[in-house]
Amino acid sequence: MAIATIKWDNGAIKIIDQTLLPNKLVYLKFKDLKGFWHAIKKLQVRGAPALGVAAAYGAYLGIQNSRAKNYNGFMRDLGKVIKFLGSARPTAVNLFWGLDRMRAVAVKNKDKNVAAIKKAMLSEAHRVFEEDRAICRRMADHGARLIKNSDVILTHCNAGALATADYGTALGVVYRAKEQGKRIKVYADETRPLLQGARLTAWELMREGIDVTLICDNMAAHVMGQGKITKVIVGADRIARNGDTANKIGTYGVAVLAKYHKIPFYVVAPVSTIDFSLENGRQIPIEERGSDEITTIQGRRIAPKGVAAYCPAFDVTPSRLITAIVTEKGVFKPDEIKRIR
Amino acid sequence: MAIATIKWDNGAIKIIDQTLLPNKLVYLKFKDLKGFWHAIKKLQVRGAPALGVAAAYGAYLGIQNSRAKNYNGFMRDLGKVIKFLGSARPTAVNLFWGLDRMRAVAVKNKDKNVAAIKKAMLSEAHRVFEEDRAICRRMADHGARLIKNSDVILTHCNAGALATADYGTALGVVYRAKEQGKRIKVYADETRPLLQGARLTAWELMREGIDVTLICDNMAAHVMGQGKITKVIVGADRIARNGDTANKIGTYGVAVLAKYHKIPFYVVAPVSTIDFSLENGRQIPIEERGSDEITTIQGRRIAPKGVAAYCPAFDVTPSRLITAIVTEKGVFKPDEIKRIR
Repeated sequence: MAIATIKWDNGAIKIIDQTLLPNKLVYLKFKDLKGFWHAIKKLQVRGAPALGVAAAYGAYLGIQNSRAKNYNGFMRDLGKVIKFLGSARPTAVNLFWGLDRMRAVAVKNKDKNVAAIKKAMLSEAHRVFEEDRAICRRMADHGARLIKNSDVILTHCNAGALATADYGTALGVVYRAKEQGKRIKVYADETRPLLQGARLTAWELMREGIDVTLICDNMAAHVMGQGKITKVIVGADRIARNGDTANKIGTYGVAVLAKYHKIPFYVVAPVSTIDFSLENGRQIPIEERGSDEITTIQGRRIAPKGVAAYCPAFDVTPSRLITAIVTEKGVFKPDEIKRIR
Repeated sequence: MAIATIKWDNGAIKIIDQTLLPNKLVYLKFKDLKGFWHAIKKLQVRGAPALGVAAAYGAYLGIQNSRAKNYNGFMRDLGKVIKFLGSARPTAVNLFWGLDRMRAVAVKNKDKNVAAIKKAMLSEAHRVFEEDRAICRRMADHGARLIKNSDVILTHCNAGALATADYGTALGVVYRAKEQGKRIKVYADETRPLLQGARLTAWELMREGIDVTLICDNMAAHVMGQGKITKVIVGADRIARNGDTANKIGTYGVAVLAKYHKIPFYVVAPVSTIDFSLENGRQIPIEERGSDEITTIQGRRIAPKGVAAYCPAFDVTPSRLITAIVTEKGVFKPDEIKRIR
């Protein structure tokens, strides 16, 4: 059983405070919407699939004590809750996806009384949660078939249990392969600037008893050159319909290195990550972050004051560098995913 | 004029304390050998060519007040000084090279009195210093011919004024090109784990008025993919006679990325860096450092306690990925450097 990053617990949302990892494992419980809004804002809960679940439970948390007597009054309350939650991470697509689902279920039950609408919404939130778990499991099943005994897997950033309601995406494949009795070893890129690999991936792999070795991002080429890596597996933030894949900054470089060393490069992501409206990766906008993410680490300055720094949050790996994309619907060559639609 | 990383100043050795950069520019002056030994040990002065100069002046510092009355007594004192200085960085080849030169000059002057031997040794130390400066200038002259107006150069680690007695190696080329009126821009890899790019390269380039942008190591692929980089220029720690080059960890990955993006990749290093006894790069031993260099940054823990980490200090870039090697004797294709001998 993967660690419970987010779950509904007796009238409250329970999450792991990911900002305290790896130094402390602290669970937070929220019964009030405002507190949970801050948790999303401060990245105490993060990861695209996990944010969809957070949105669903968050919407219910916000209206569970609504005193509205009729549908119109209730929808006014719900509208405020949805608007408020969305403002916590205005660019997180999955947050809005989760909120939309919750609004839709209220509308669908408009002829019922408020108590029944609330009940339907809690069921829907549980459904979002369970769907994410089921999708994680199916991706892991499909992906694990690619893994051989004694594989040594390099991964980048955190695409694990801490980013989803269950197994994770890329790391789900690792967990499933281990359950199948395969002996595997993982090299985790630390993933500058925010060090999700060092802080989160290394932590959750150790907790699951997976043999993990942490390296700096710039050491990946050296370990590949030494013949230590047999597969690269990463997650995805957005995939264009030609298979070009946006993921955490640094993924593209790892893909080029894998190609050079003839190492298979796999992307693991749910179908919901594929944006069929985008012809190719050039249409994916790259978010640029503040330079202080590079010039300071945990509040300490590591570069000269006033230095210019360029800080893209993502990069795009062209489909020609991707061996296959693993989804809950199976394993696809990048140029085949357009057929999933 | 490049910043004075190390120089002889009125009976003392004056250095920049590089451990305080970029936050503070502090000069330290040493009249006693023990204090200077600690400065080498703590990396307050570092960089292969600079350590050769440090060894030369350090040896003189250690014997300038020797009360020995004859050659044998003097050589006993000098032997102790040399042994002591070498123990500060037992793997630094240039330190021993500098100490050997100082011993040799004492031996050569054995028929003179102690005062004359001391005088000859100070002259030799000045010669080591001046030679390093002259070599920097010649490398810079040769290398600058490769640089065009509007070039955008990516560099890794610090191969600049802070690593030599003058201009630096890779950065010397940049400084010379700028003096020639060429408009150039530099992207500096931060260079994990010890962040020499962020702390030292960015600092010295800003000080010299060079347009520098700091990036995390894993962003190099993205900026190359965007067509932003026209040349890669790095230094070297050791070069085998077939042109395979050991340099700071991460250099090999940059070389693979440069090849993939069809960007020329240049190494700038003095001929003394070439180890003609080594047939190829596989014979270069790779120093492995403690895992705390990865798991902590400036004393702060950024990874789980007990995590395994692999921390190679260098990697080897095979000669097929190197466009040319720039030395004080000219610009060579990697397979031509064996002719320099």
